[in-house]
Amino acid sequence: MTRLLIEGIEGIPEIQPGDDLAELIVTALAGNDCELQDGDIVVVTHKVVSKQEGRLVEIPDEATYRSLVEDEAMEVIRRRGDLVIARTRHGFICANAAVDRSNIAEGYALLLPIDPDRSAHRLRTLIERATGTSIGLVITDTFGRPWRRGLVDVAIGMSGLPAIVDLRGTTDAHGNELSVTEVAVVDEIAAAADLVMGKATQIPIAVVRGLDLTGSGRAQDLVRPAGEDLFR
Amino acid sequence: MTRLLIEGIEGIPEIQPGDDLAELIVTALAGNDCELQDGDIVVVTHKVVSKQEGRLVEIPDEATYRSLVEDEAMEVIRRRGDLVIARTRHGFICANAAVDRSNIAEGYALLLPIDPDRSAHRLRTLIERATGTSIGLVITDTFGRPWRRGLVDVAIGMSGLPAIVDLRGTTDAHGNELSVTEVAVVDEIAAAADLVMGKATQIPIAVVRGLDLTGSGRAQDLVRPAGEDLFR
Repeated sequence: MTRLLIEGIEGIPEIQPGDDLAELIVTALAGNDCELQDGDIVVVTHKVVSKQEGRLVEIPDEATYRSLVEDEAMEVIRRRGDLVIARTRHGFICANAAVDRSNIAEGYALLLPIDPDRSAHRLRTLIERATGTSIGLVITDTFGRPWRRGLVDVAIGMSGLPAIVDLRGTTDAHGNELSVTEVAVVDEIAAAADLVMGKATQIPIAVVRGLDLTGSGRAQDLVRPAGEDLFR
Repeated sequence: MTRLLIEGIEGIPEIQPGDDLAELIVTALAGNDCELQDGDIVVVTHKVVSKQEGRLVEIPDEATYRSLVEDEAMEVIRRRGDLVIARTRHGFICANAAVDRSNIAEGYALLLPIDPDRSAHRLRTLIERATGTSIGLVITDTFGRPWRRGLVDVAIGMSGLPAIVDLRGTTDAHGNELSVTEVAVVDEIAAAADLVMGKATQIPIAVVRGLDLTGSGRAQDLVRPAGEDLFR
């Protein structure tokens, strides 16, 4: 039987720039009686990483927020009224170029980490050292989708696991070669973790246990090249 | 602590039209030592539901397949070479109008159920009667996304749980009112379940335990109305 366990980790305090986030996570894990094991995947909402990296920006008024969104947008894909769908410096396409005002103190906005894959690698290494384990780490954000209502969490940074599991060349149960079955496994992990993290609650961390993933990848691997994309 | 358990259920045989799918699922659950509890969510890949409903179609050659895709497409959204992104009769926008050839016997293709929400409701009711529980049921398919590489599972039919959890009107940890935070919780459940179901393996069923969801919804609720959509 294949069994997956996902635990939400409480007890992370409000993060300040420069905090030792790895230590705060390790302490919270202990407080939740969650002892990391090899192969566990620690999922972290970008908010705590971005705050630790000092990406909080003061926005005294709506005009400042709008201007910040325009600054962060490398390319505006669609615009309708106040809604801007834009490409970030990382290549992610999302609302308001990922400039975040929810779950942020009033008068502030939060930007994504400059290099979320690098942030994930650093945080993973520190947690591995502190716990003596070999883990994966995923940093998430909440994105909308064309055509489907509602938001889902996706990976914006990662380390220690593959982004996409490529089933091309393997055969299905009928002996047919699977032609194009690239599963965005890290986005499915991000979505799964959000089920325990919630939006309005104080659970910015989750641990996913039971996946048998080998290999490495970057969230950058998830960005579809413009030339292959039909929806720019 | 918030804890979620996801179990993959093996032992579902190759499904034939008219099979008692609910009974086969209940038998497989017992074979996996998984006793359903109130509040559990049973996730089922559409393939077994579609086969049970006789939606397997013979496609002797590529031209027949192409013609089937055109028939199933209510509207072609984009076309490049052989790739067709189209809207199905249900309103879902996906590759090849959801006409499926992977994990299907050679020479055949599989169409979606005519009314997947209704299929989900029927299957849920039968499983509830057989087990004396109150559950949710989700039928999934595997879709690509604009802008992001890789496929993820999403909900195409559902019963007994909400499609979207609306956090509008609630306040976040900073006391701000959350302006637009509609989480597509059922799509996150579909993605989470796919982590144990896999693509090339024989696990078409998963049980998700530990979510505290109230309310009801339809996968139809996930279809963004054309007038609100910027990417048609």
